[in-house]
Amino acid sequence: MISKKEIKLIRSLDRKKFRDREGIFVVEGEKSVEEALNSGLEILKLYRISEIGEKAMSRITLLNSPSPALALVRKPTLPDASQIATLIASRPLSLALDSIRDPGNLGTIIRLADWFGIGTIFASHDTVDCFNPKVVQATMGSIFRTKIIYCDLLQIVSEFRAAGMQVFGTFLEGRSIYEENLSSSGVIVMGSESHGISPALEKQVTHRLSIPSFSPASANAPDSLNVAIATAIICSEFRRR
Amino acid sequence: MISKKEIKLIRSLDRKKFRDREGIFVVEGEKSVEEALNSGLEILKLYRISEIGEKAMSRITLLNSPSPALALVRKPTLPDASQIATLIASRPLSLALDSIRDPGNLGTIIRLADWFGIGTIFASHDTVDCFNPKVVQATMGSIFRTKIIYCDLLQIVSEFRAAGMQVFGTFLEGRSIYEENLSSSGVIVMGSESHGISPALEKQVTHRLSIPSFSPASANAPDSLNVAIATAIICSEFRRR
Repeated sequence: MISKKEIKLIRSLDRKKFRDREGIFVVEGEKSVEEALNSGLEILKLYRISEIGEKAMSRITLLNSPSPALALVRKPTLPDASQIATLIASRPLSLALDSIRDPGNLGTIIRLADWFGIGTIFASHDTVDCFNPKVVQATMGSIFRTKIIYCDLLQIVSEFRAAGMQVFGTFLEGRSIYEENLSSSGVIVMGSESHGISPALEKQVTHRLSIPSFSPASANAPDSLNVAIATAIICSEFRRR
Repeated sequence: MISKKEIKLIRSLDRKKFRDREGIFVVEGEKSVEEALNSGLEILKLYRISEIGEKAMSRITLLNSPSPALALVRKPTLPDASQIATLIASRPLSLALDSIRDPGNLGTIIRLADWFGIGTIFASHDTVDCFNPKVVQATMGSIFRTKIIYCDLLQIVSEFRAAGMQVFGTFLEGRSIYEENLSSSGVIVMGSESHGISPALEKQVTHRLSIPSFSPASANAPDSLNVAIATAIICSEFRRR
């Protein structure tokens, strides 16, 4: 049996305000829950459809249809400033997301970063919360293997530059990613689909990249790619070298 | 003023059955409607929020929130068998989608195919309808520059082979796309995310490709990429050469 109080708590976790207050997020789906159990994060509660039944599950799910399993998971503690400084000093290849608002896009980016061995994603404060249930679902478990650090992006990017690393940005006009020298350390800045990279951040970019279009149309050609798609193509190019 | 009959017609076009019966689909959004007007397709009716008001627009929208513009567009006529044969004889690089069910994925694939100059997409009959409103929206206008042909994929792929072209398939185990010889003609088969490429189709594949993972995790590594993401990385590799 699930109490009304439990149902109310779980349903409240659809909203960032309550996830922050409780320090808890919801993980749904067989595979994602299994990864949560292996992640080392504290599992506060685990509900299985085989135990509580479909009706109860449908009352607590935050997705469109009830999953076989749902877990309440303690949010990881974020690295502090000195840990971030140590991280940057290790000269990683990282992503910096400037105002990504769509949960599906963020989830997809976390999943592909994991695939390409990019362990840290810096995100502007106005990027959608990575513990949003739709984001968690779209990461297919990759949320547990990737550090997502919400921060002042301008400051982080400046720290990368101060440490002598390159700052890559993707624009409609820039040097072809197929021809530009790409390094195995530095930060790749991805801007929001509607506004691109913000002007202040753009000034910090040392390498302007673009993904060439092969469309035969001229007047009426496609004018952009989805941000998750662009991130995938760029990460693939960085890792291929 | 919009009549009740018009509202009923438009709302019915959310379903494939009625789109097929009427031969009409709905295009929403400023940019997509503009592309529809430039596409050469017959526009049966155009509604603008500036003319009919927000309240009326919210009654006809098929999306989550009303768009500034909505058009009813005549569906294009599909090429017949002889036109498809002529198309294959021109030795294009094409995509073949085997059972892609998610509207967002299909829309994103159409958009990136357009970007990479891939003019024709063959789709299995159980792939989501490309005139589904969510698909149309996700293509951001690329639906008007890309031919999507629903067909017996096995037959089309056999025709590519009979014409001496290569059939590429993406698998978890295969030769690295970064190392394999990729040609500028042939067909790239993408399988559904849940089941991959169907066994009968797999037998027709001449080149098994895979996208290498760079994840440092071993036991607990990501086991796949989203199908639209995989398609993007593969198309980028084909066009880069």
